[in-house]
Formats: sequence, C-alpha cells, structure tokens
Amino acid sequence: MNDINERHRIRMERKKAIIDKKISEADKHIGIIVVTTGNGKGKSSSGFGMVMRALGHGMKVAVIQFIKGGMSTGEEKFLRRFPDEVSFHAMGEGYTWETQDRERDTAKAAEAWALARRFLADPEIGLVLLDELNIALKYRYLDTAEVIEDLLGRPLMQHVVITGRGAPEELVTAADTVTEMAVVKHAFQAGIAAQQGTEW
Amino acid sequence: MNDINERHRIRMERKKAIIDKKISEADKHIGIIVVTTGNGKGKSSSGFGMVMRALGHGMKVAVIQFIKGGMSTGEEKFLRRFPDEVSFHAMGEGYTWETQDRERDTAKAAEAWALARRFLADPEIGLVLLDELNIALKYRYLDTAEVIEDLLGRPLMQHVVITGRGAPEELVTAADTVTEMAVVKHAFQAGIAAQQGTEW
Repeated sequence: MNDINERHRIRMERKKAIIDKKISEADKHIGIIVVTTGNGKGKSSSGFGMVMRALGHGMKVAVIQFIKGGMSTGEEKFLRRFPDEVSFHAMGEGYTWETQDRERDTAKAAEAWALARRFLADPEIGLVLLDELNIALKYRYLDTAEVIEDLLGRPLMQHVVITGRGAPEELVTAADTVTEMAVVKHAFQAGIAAQQGTEW
Repeated sequence: MNDINERHRIRMERKKAIIDKKISEADKHIGIIVVTTGNGKGKSSSGFGMVMRALGHGMKVAVIQFIKGGMSTGEEKFLRRFPDEVSFHAMGEGYTWETQDRERDTAKAAEAWALARRFLADPEIGLVLLDELNIALKYRYLDTAEVIEDLLGRPLMQHVVITGRGAPEELVTAADTVTEMAVVKHAFQAGIAAQQGTEW
C-alpha cells in the first residue's frame, strides 16, 4: 500500500473514533423540529426530501403550504398520487408581494394554522411539513409565541419541518436542527428562468 | 383599511415591480446544474425534494449515491417503488471514515462515475441526482476536471443536482445554482440520534 493510501487510512481511523464517540453519546430518539431558512435555494426542496424519507419508512405525512397555492407545483402533483399516505394542503394564494393584501393574507394564514394544529395533535402523523411558515411569521400574519406553543405540544415522536426565509429568533431557539441556506450563486442571476423540476 | 395594511400594500407593490422585472429578464429555459454544499443539514434532502418535483412533472430521474449504500434509507425504500420512473443506485459502502480504505473507495467511485456517465448521455432522463459526489471529488477519488467535462456535455434540457460537503471551486464555477448550507444548530449536539424520516 502506498503512502497516500496509508495516510488516508490513519486519518480516517481517527475521524471514525471521534464520530463513533459522538454517535454513542447521541442516543435519544424523539420527534424533532427542523427549520430551514436563509435566502439560498433548497429550503422547501429539503422539506420535501424529508417527506420522501418519512414515506419510505412507512410514516404518514401532512403537508401545509402557507404561501404557495396559486399554481400547481411538481411536489403537489406528485404527492397527490398518495392520498392514503399524504395529506396535502396548498393554503396560500402566492407570495405576499403578489397578493398585496395584508388582511386577506392574515386570514388565509389563520385558516392554514387551524388546519396545522389538527395534524400537530394527531399521533398518527409521523411528519408535518409547514412549508413557508417562516414567511407568515416574519410578516406577523401569525403570532410566533402561539405557533411555538402548539409545536411544543405535539406528540412526542412527531417530526416537524418548517421552511422559509426569515425564521424568527424564538423559533430558532425552540427548534432542534436549524440550517441557514446561503446563495453562492443562482441561475436566475444569469437570466435563466425558474425551471420545472428543480424550482417548482 | 388601516395604516399597517396600507403600508404593507405599498411596500409589496414596489417589491412586486422589482421581482416582475427580474422574472421578465430571466427567460432562458435550459437544464441547470444545482450544487448543495456546506456542513448544514439539508443537502441530500433538497436533492430528493427536486427528484420529487421532477417526478411530479412527468420526468424520468436517475439517482446515484456515491457514499451511501451500507444501509437502507427512507429515500431508497420509497424510490424503489417507482422502477419505471426512477433508476436508483446506491453505489457506496458508507462514509470514507467507515471504510478507511482509499483504494477501494476510489475503485467504487470510478464504477459509480461510469454509471453516471450513461445517464448524463441519455436525453430521456430529465434529472440526475449525484448524491455526495462532492465528497468523492474532495478526497480525489475522481478527477474534478473530467467530471465537469462529462457534466457540461450532457443533454441540453437535463438537470443535474450534486450534493455533499466540500464542493470544489471548479465545480462551483461550472454550476448554475449553488447553495451553501450552514449549521445554525443540530439536534445531534443535544444528544439526539439521527432520526428516521428526517436524517435517513
């Protein structure tokens, strides 16, 4: 075996020892709150990837989209194929700069949250995706403290995934895993339109 | 209408004008390269979310996992339900610190890339997910310049999504959309094990 391979082996052996120790210490099994925020691409799509994982493990899933609803997306078309496994609700009417009507957006958000609460009280649902909820909180269409209270009161093993720009600090504090997605570059900047299959 | 609502309407009207202008300028329709990198959670799951979107739009999809393969994941279990729509290949044997064998990892990566090239030459495939490819490039199991040449030679309308920590600079340059995912916090840090449905 040559030098580079041997050095690699030794380095990886050390890395494995560190990671194995961390894994043996992380032994709690419990439903978690995952928040994806920031301006980069990948927030909603990572939520839908977790929906896929949950479905693969035989869980039932609920999806509530707080902003989207004006157009039929790939995720909606796909998930509507599995009505026994996925409860899908696109409750929005487009982004808030499209509607320009704060009272209407607030009423729609309240309606969406009332539905979310039903899933957050149902132990049969293994994962709840609250897509773009952060935007509804950022514009104060919903009260963040009340939302967090409902989240923390959910069934012990239920996962919740919350996406959207501008996650409020209180939600970050309440969450278990939080990722900030930053734009390094975006196809849009080079004049490429939002593409079917990647953006929607 | 009260003040807060009217201010909101005016602000959103201005925002809409800016966004509409950007959208009208972004009119190219073409397959894109999306790269998700960084240490935060959500890289692979955003790739699987884009797989879901593509399937929703009736595209055929190929998935190659360069590192994973040692255990059956939720995404694998789920996607194997659709053999006519998804070609799924878990080609790895676990993370490189698990295998500790550079020659073997290099051979496995070469085998996975040979398969990837077949999909990258097939215009029937609308989206190719190359999960954890960045790790294979970072450890130089594959030659980055050769990989980029194959990526750029793919069919015009085909999307490619590449995930994993440590995306090389040359790949970032070649890509259309790149997101850096940063850890704000992770459940692991609070002693919570990787959870079924969210992490795997």
